[in-house]
Amino acid sequence: MKPSLKQATNSRESSATSDLGALFAPRSVAVIGASAEPARFTGRIIPTLQRHGYRGAIYPVNPKRSELNGLPCYQSLADVPADIDCVVYGIGAGHILPVVDACAAKGVRLLVVASAGFAENGTAEGKALQQELVHRARAHGIRVLGPNGIGFGNFVDRAIISAAAVMAWPDVPRGGIGLVSQSGGLGLATIAYCAFEEGIHFSHLISTGNEADIDTIEVAEFFVDDDATDVIAITLEAVRQPDRFIRLLRRAGAVGKPVVVLKSGRSDLGKVMAASHTGAMAGQSAVFEMVCREYGVTMAEDVDDFYQIAAMFGKLRASGKLAAFTAPGEGCAALSLSGGHVGLFADHGSLAGLRFPALRGETTRSLADCLGFDGHFQNPLDTTARVIGNNAFWGKCVRALMDQDDIQVVVPIITVAPSYAEALEDFVRIAGERREILLVVWAGGSFGEGEKEIVRRSDVPVFRTPARAAEALRALQRYCARWNRPDATPETLPVLDNDAARSLLAQARAEGRTTLLEHESKRILAAIGMPTPRDAVVSSISEAEAAAEALGYPVAVKGEHPEFPHKSDVGLVALGIADATMLRATVADMHARLPEDGRGQILIQEMRPPTQELILGVNTDPEFGPVVMVGLGGVFVEVMQDFAMRLPPFGVTEAKRMLGELRGISLLQGARGTQPVDLDSLADLVARFSVFADHNRDMIAEIDINPLAVVAGDAGCPFALDALIVLQDD
Amino acid sequence: MKPSLKQATNSRESSATSDLGALFAPRSVAVIGASAEPARFTGRIIPTLQRHGYRGAIYPVNPKRSELNGLPCYQSLADVPADIDCVVYGIGAGHILPVVDACAAKGVRLLVVASAGFAENGTAEGKALQQELVHRARAHGIRVLGPNGIGFGNFVDRAIISAAAVMAWPDVPRGGIGLVSQSGGLGLATIAYCAFEEGIHFSHLISTGNEADIDTIEVAEFFVDDDATDVIAITLEAVRQPDRFIRLLRRAGAVGKPVVVLKSGRSDLGKVMAASHTGAMAGQSAVFEMVCREYGVTMAEDVDDFYQIAAMFGKLRASGKLAAFTAPGEGCAALSLSGGHVGLFADHGSLAGLRFPALRGETTRSLADCLGFDGHFQNPLDTTARVIGNNAFWGKCVRALMDQDDIQVVVPIITVAPSYAEALEDFVRIAGERREILLVVWAGGSFGEGEKEIVRRSDVPVFRTPARAAEALRALQRYCARWNRPDATPETLPVLDNDAARSLLAQARAEGRTTLLEHESKRILAAIGMPTPRDAVVSSISEAEAAAEALGYPVAVKGEHPEFPHKSDVGLVALGIADATMLRATVADMHARLPEDGRGQILIQEMRPPTQELILGVNTDPEFGPVVMVGLGGVFVEVMQDFAMRLPPFGVTEAKRMLGELRGISLLQGARGTQPVDLDSLADLVARFSVFADHNRDMIAEIDINPLAVVAGDAGCPFALDALIVLQDD
Repeated sequence: MKPSLKQATNSRESSATSDLGALFAPRSVAVIGASAEPARFTGRIIPTLQRHGYRGAIYPVNPKRSELNGLPCYQSLADVPADIDCVVYGIGAGHILPVVDACAAKGVRLLVVASAGFAENGTAEGKALQQELVHRARAHGIRVLGPNGIGFGNFVDRAIISAAAVMAWPDVPRGGIGLVSQSGGLGLATIAYCAFEEGIHFSHLISTGNEADIDTIEVAEFFVDDDATDVIAITLEAVRQPDRFIRLLRRAGAVGKPVVVLKSGRSDLGKVMAASHTGAMAGQSAVFEMVCREYGVTMAEDVDDFYQIAAMFGKLRASGKLAAFTAPGEGCAALSLSGGHVGLFADHGSLAGLRFPALRGETTRSLADCLGFDGHFQNPLDTTARVIGNNAFWGKCVRALMDQDDIQVVVPIITVAPSYAEALEDFVRIAGERREILLVVWAGGSFGEGEKEIVRRSDVPVFRTPARAAEALRALQRYCARWNRPDATPETLPVLDNDAARSLLAQARAEGRTTLLEHESKRILAAIGMPTPRDAVVSSISEAEAAAEALGYPVAVKGEHPEFPHKSDVGLVALGIADATMLRATVADMHARLPEDGRGQILIQEMRPPTQELILGVNTDPEFGPVVMVGLGGVFVEVMQDFAMRLPPFGVTEAKRMLGELRGISLLQGARGTQPVDLDSLADLVARFSVFADHNRDMIAEIDINPLAVVAGDAGCPFALDALIVLQDD
Repeated sequence: MKPSLKQATNSRESSATSDLGALFAPRSVAVIGASAEPARFTGRIIPTLQRHGYRGAIYPVNPKRSELNGLPCYQSLADVPADIDCVVYGIGAGHILPVVDACAAKGVRLLVVASAGFAENGTAEGKALQQELVHRARAHGIRVLGPNGIGFGNFVDRAIISAAAVMAWPDVPRGGIGLVSQSGGLGLATIAYCAFEEGIHFSHLISTGNEADIDTIEVAEFFVDDDATDVIAITLEAVRQPDRFIRLLRRAGAVGKPVVVLKSGRSDLGKVMAASHTGAMAGQSAVFEMVCREYGVTMAEDVDDFYQIAAMFGKLRASGKLAAFTAPGEGCAALSLSGGHVGLFADHGSLAGLRFPALRGETTRSLADCLGFDGHFQNPLDTTARVIGNNAFWGKCVRALMDQDDIQVVVPIITVAPSYAEALEDFVRIAGERREILLVVWAGGSFGEGEKEIVRRSDVPVFRTPARAAEALRALQRYCARWNRPDATPETLPVLDNDAARSLLAQARAEGRTTLLEHESKRILAAIGMPTPRDAVVSSISEAEAAAEALGYPVAVKGEHPEFPHKSDVGLVALGIADATMLRATVADMHARLPEDGRGQILIQEMRPPTQELILGVNTDPEFGPVVMVGLGGVFVEVMQDFAMRLPPFGVTEAKRMLGELRGISLLQGARGTQPVDLDSLADLVARFSVFADHNRDMIAEIDINPLAVVAGDAGCPFALDALIVLQDD
């Protein structure tokens, strides 16, 4: 149980994130309470630094010793005869505050606090201590990593400052993955261990713990700027600052660094767990998934997918291939001597949206040469077991497939064989020579050390099963489609005159109102140019008659009251009022139904029965704030959950993409005899609505335009037939 | 390319499947062309048999040698001085036929043919040779495994007759999984290798190859009867004989043996690959998935899930726990000292439909005792890193959780730690003592040999990531819900008088018709008691007038012709004909639209505009034959794909389950002001329809009742407003 680990730190935005590079590469490290006992946290830091060949100065601090790990040991920080860049603290939380002051005296820039006993224990004392720690550190210009983290590993500069057992692995080379994880147990312990076992390595492994100061997003921002990092891997429970998160995704995309996320808090129970683990509330899973789709972020399904897909991205970026294709998944080829594996990959690949171009005559002839026999070759290619014992065919066939110009990715699927080394060496050579992407599925059990070494020093991504390779290629396809497309930069937003609408919103808020009446809501929408039916608020039967005459019968009559936002449920909507007699009776009836508190009103509205109904709205997600939704109306949205979402603001092209995601899009295009909707007008309207939702995110909690209607004879242009705006509580 | 490996073998049904047990445990084995060269197929059989401690007699046969592998070598089969149970043939396909005759002379019962060069090569010669091989073997009462397989391993009787490299692993113990795989590369090579590496073992591993004689289903049937086998694992590309497959699933369920399937041929491309690999056409993926759901079969998503989930089922059955729970997934608990892992498991578990009961006060107090500190404990339980170094807490906490009576499954999630042995030993002990299920998530890298050994000899299932454990528990929940529920045996089917309908079908077929007219289709449905509107076929305008008078205006007029099954598309439906004048004009118009070939007819029908539309139909799946579908009508089925499927026949309870699967079920229950449908009547009608579809599966290709309508004032009882029956081509 770690409630609300995170204290508000509004000043973080202004920190120069590029500092982290220097902080994580300290020229000297002091360990407070350094111990000779390897079972203790403070006993493992220095041996780990030494094992990894740390080139800076190391200062053990322990008043009970004069020497430790072959180094002179100091009584206190003050006794250290030089300035210190980084101090590691892993003993009792209660003694930390004087240490901060001592750090200041030695010019310390980074304080790594591994101790527990701060905000994570849920007590007022723990929170106060954490707050005071950060407050005092900031006053001295010292940054804090933790508390309650397990340190960090910088494999570029060989500064491994962590007691995690896995960090003591010898000879861990550097790789291209920058991993940041709040949870030390997940990120530094488990993931690093499993990844190392598979020959997958990191530029940095950073555990942010309670995130009292340095947090996940700041570290990820550092990875964007860090030359040694090719891919950003993040374990995430909840997004606390969506603006910073989105900005991070944009910046990462702009420099061509993929982001891979392992997210929990997707289910209701998972949200509760995330909240109690980190104190942050996760939003709707669908919103997070939408954000990931929008920014080409890979959401890993499982722990091993997470680091394996990150490794693939890292290798492809390092070899310059990541930026070379806009749709690599549309040009896949695969081959195996196991027909069963070929079938599985064809299946998983197709279900993941990959395409396998048909083999041309020339390719088929080349393959026959490579294999030494003719056959009815298909893509993916089942070479059959006739090739067993001939390891040279692998490389030859891969080249033959790459020679076909619509093939961009080739996937050899290797099953158990006496030796893999020859084929692997071929693959590494081919990957270096060719512009196409080579990705190996290694279906045959564990690597030997020799093979692991070949894979480790190569730019060839390796997966263990056809399904996981297909999933990785889907992620690659999505990334390339998003960031390598010509229009990867955000499109121009519609210009909106927000002033009139905003002053109406502000006025309602000033009056202490939250749920606006229908006619007020529509007036606000009309102020941003959204078509609405003609209507009039009336205060007497004679006004009602005059209004109906002006609008022309039949009319609709609605009784409005702030307590009854869903009018039709309580008999406050009457449609098709045909004449003055009916009108008078209806208005009288509405008056009787409305509470006599002076807040009720009668609305007379022209009748425009829709031929088709949509919904358009905005909701506030706990993580990401306003989310615009559009869908077909009625049962489609309520029963079939057929709607598309985006974070506002966005332009017309994005709005069209949203509409294209609706399963019922054909019904907007005239399928089954429906009236086609003018999709250009609709997309324009949705985009403008998104800009409005964005401009007024400080005031609006919810907007529900239901239905957004299309009327026969109206050239398919939609308008807001009913609308409800709910303001935020102040 | 291996087109049509499978020759029709209608006599297979009559084989006594229990024979396979004896065939796979031969008392003696002869190897034709036995070689001293381990790189050759025929050089690996005998050393493998010897390494595994085969207790029967081994006879190398090779005219060029007098001794081999320490055994006397014979010139020919005839020279072997005893009868022989099993002969292995792995040399040139062309020389096999005389060998069959020689086998007969020695009383051989099983001929294992590993050689390629039969039907799989796609040539007429290959097919003919395979046919002759089986023909001749059958004549002598010899069963054939293969050709083009890689043999089998019987780990119960230590008879390992295969050249697959993995079969030469030393000291492979027996396990409870019976695995049958047509593809040797997938099943015997890859899967066995990866499973052995994880300490997962098998009763039998059987590669059926071309399945000229012994096929996948026959082997699986043997596993149902085999006492050493607890779980049946099948890799499958297409189901060729759905009746046998379904019977297998029923028999396996009846004896409490789970079936786990790794299926390819799910995507369109996958189907093409499967067809070219095995010559069998896979059906719709959704149909296969439905069959799996119906029979509690687990469809593994990936290769490793496949053997890991099979291992879980095997262990739970062996320990008697599989039969003990009807809904284990509803009583899950989990614990870890990594909050990140707890969050991931809560997430994946919830998304997989698992439920985590809230901890009671008593449980919380026990946990506090076990852990040595108080906390706001939740389920799943984050013990926090405070317990590091105290391995005893694992077992204690697991027991405390099991003591809560609504907890049936406990999942400890172990991350990287210096030693796992103590906790593992505890788990094994607890699993032996308690009735609850214990399932370990081992998130911390590879097992050491010691830990692997503990897991191997225990009944504790182990998974590597939270997501995969959750997926396995979903499979367990589905299995238990299906086979441990009180009504696991099939319900009684509605009794149907099929005679009248069948004679109408037979008559139409005798006339060489395939697409029946609407009124004929409805007459057939009426004959099985399905309500239809009143109607009359008329041949003149005066007959039309008389019919309309009798039905009462308004009426519907339809022009029927076998070439136009979709009448409204070609103007052959007129609704709401209000009087005789309109009627005459309409009938004249229809006459003009119908081709003048004497096959057109005019139908006058009472008008019963539906308030709600459903569809009910049957389609023929290439794998499974007739499939009954029911759904909401119109856009729901066409655009939203909202329908449920079942294999006929089934009873009313099953029909209600189908209706419950519809996303739009609320619309049948009166949501959004719709007229509620009488679900009892509807379920009864669907069940009776399924019995009809089953009885007449030899004649019917397709039935489309669209709409199955509900009319206001009709007490919600549905009837067939339009119907189309298509007969099978003869």
